[in-house]
Amino acid sequence: MAQRSEVAVCVDAVGGDHGPEEVLRGVAAAVADDEALTVILTGPDEIVTPFAAGKDRIVAHPTTEIIAMDEHPAAAVRSKKDSSIVVGCRLVKEGRADAFFSAGSTGAIMAAATLVMGRIKGIQRPAIGAVIPTGAEPVVLLDIGANADCKPENLLQFAHMGSAYAKVVLGLKSPRVGLLNIGEERTKGSLLAQEAHALMSAHVPGFVGNIEGRDVPFGAADVIVTDGFTGNVALKLLEGVSSSLLGQVKAALTETAFSRLTALAARPALTRLKLRLDPDTYGGAPLLGVDGICIIGHGSSNRAAVYAAIKGAARASRGGLRTAIADAVTLDR
Amino acid sequence: MAQRSEVAVCVDAVGGDHGPEEVLRGVAAAVADDEALTVILTGPDEIVTPFAAGKDRIVAHPTTEIIAMDEHPAAAVRSKKDSSIVVGCRLVKEGRADAFFSAGSTGAIMAAATLVMGRIKGIQRPAIGAVIPTGAEPVVLLDIGANADCKPENLLQFAHMGSAYAKVVLGLKSPRVGLLNIGEERTKGSLLAQEAHALMSAHVPGFVGNIEGRDVPFGAADVIVTDGFTGNVALKLLEGVSSSLLGQVKAALTETAFSRLTALAARPALTRLKLRLDPDTYGGAPLLGVDGICIIGHGSSNRAAVYAAIKGAARASRGGLRTAIADAVTLDR
Repeated sequence: MAQRSEVAVCVDAVGGDHGPEEVLRGVAAAVADDEALTVILTGPDEIVTPFAAGKDRIVAHPTTEIIAMDEHPAAAVRSKKDSSIVVGCRLVKEGRADAFFSAGSTGAIMAAATLVMGRIKGIQRPAIGAVIPTGAEPVVLLDIGANADCKPENLLQFAHMGSAYAKVVLGLKSPRVGLLNIGEERTKGSLLAQEAHALMSAHVPGFVGNIEGRDVPFGAADVIVTDGFTGNVALKLLEGVSSSLLGQVKAALTETAFSRLTALAARPALTRLKLRLDPDTYGGAPLLGVDGICIIGHGSSNRAAVYAAIKGAARASRGGLRTAIADAVTLDR
Repeated sequence: MAQRSEVAVCVDAVGGDHGPEEVLRGVAAAVADDEALTVILTGPDEIVTPFAAGKDRIVAHPTTEIIAMDEHPAAAVRSKKDSSIVVGCRLVKEGRADAFFSAGSTGAIMAAATLVMGRIKGIQRPAIGAVIPTGAEPVVLLDIGANADCKPENLLQFAHMGSAYAKVVLGLKSPRVGLLNIGEERTKGSLLAQEAHALMSAHVPGFVGNIEGRDVPFGAADVIVTDGFTGNVALKLLEGVSSSLLGQVKAALTETAFSRLTALAARPALTRLKLRLDPDTYGGAPLLGVDGICIIGHGSSNRAAVYAAIKGAARASRGGLRTAIADAVTLDR
């Protein structure tokens, strides 16, 4: 096996609802697992310095400020220049880290990354992608909320960015790219979807046409493109329905005394299924289109999610995600 | 118990993928169940006349044309004036039937109902509602696809129409109405969602604010309002995820020999759950805002779905759905 190239991922030690311990455990696991990975930790001195002490590939980079989850993103990013988030983005911009991960305020991470790293040349609007677990292979869905109102050209760029991510991070050779829409024919859907369909037909390699909501969980495409409003509703609905349904399966299995026994027997199988459906398995959500690798974790990221996100960040960097996106977008001009 | 008032529901005998037999079985069950219900059947003479022969409250109304699923809706409605769909809508318009149900082409039913019945005074755009099964109480979601592009005022009217339907057909006294959006605060979401939020805050009784995708299955509101693009994606995603997930539960339970036994034992509980989640239980999808009651069944409607849709149509008529919608919309002016 080829040796893995050196990569440095900067991690925000204080992002996430579970507190720094959970983040640091994820960091330790990721570093233990990859002999060419260094993690640079931003966050309060008293947290990052003792943790990094005596460890080979964990580097403390103390910062003095923290952006809280409820602060106004843009204002916080402008005023808190020595926050764990802003400094993390700066380390990437300056080439001192290859990627940045935080499970802090999504809005603040987006604002900081866009402001500090800038956008890849030609990209109009960065988008957030999510790798969603399905019954078939995982699917990249984007945008999941960075842009509530989109133009057709934005969706075209999302297609390129999602496809590049699927190649580099999921390892797909020729990702099949679909447009989330409300009918199969190209004349179906909103004006936005109709115009995006025309653009994607002309410019996106591997474009498979419209994907309806009911086909999303069945592997109809590897990358599914939509505006940030629809994508956010779809992602959260998927999470809600899965959680509600698994709860109902559990309840249905414990309706009678006999089925309570059944439920007990079924528990290992259902736990395996729940793990397979856990979005944490696939790491955080990449902010695609900024000029640097930036991965956003949800607030409730546990150590497993942090571990997976750092691995994803390393893979994105080693695989050349920035170049892949820049190259794909150039084709349209 | 008060005696039920006489109601006549017109049913398209040839709508649906399962053929007339399945529709007619649903009709027979509905009539047997409600001594004050008459069903008027539109469709080919050789189908409707023998079936109605000798039956007390089933009336044949033979028609000579059929609109196929793949015909252009508006063109077919204009040219096939003696089709089972167009005639059904006309019977409602002329007061000879109180409601119309068809599991035929959604586009053709929408076009025929809008053209023949007209719209309730003040309604700009009719919308299609769906009663979706959730872990909690059923929820009315609209629009699920009649209007891919909407204005804020359309969403306001959808709120009134959905609320009227929840009152009349689901029997809720004060339905809680939510706006599907991508954040809880009123400043979140697309421009459409933000403006709709302001209008709904001012005009909709029982408005509970924004509902995020993940809250949909947990009874956060009784009526959830959105544009026809997002609503269609959401409805179909919900169907797809439920079906995919129940399939995976089944597969997970049969992974090992021991769990295959478990699966066998779990089957009755899972079957009950599947039935509870079956949208057929709640009848067809009402086309709200046309000046008459019109219920659309999906193409794959089986006898149970037809039965439930006819019951829903009768309830809508007896409860005065048209007046309830007309009254609600008047309040905005």
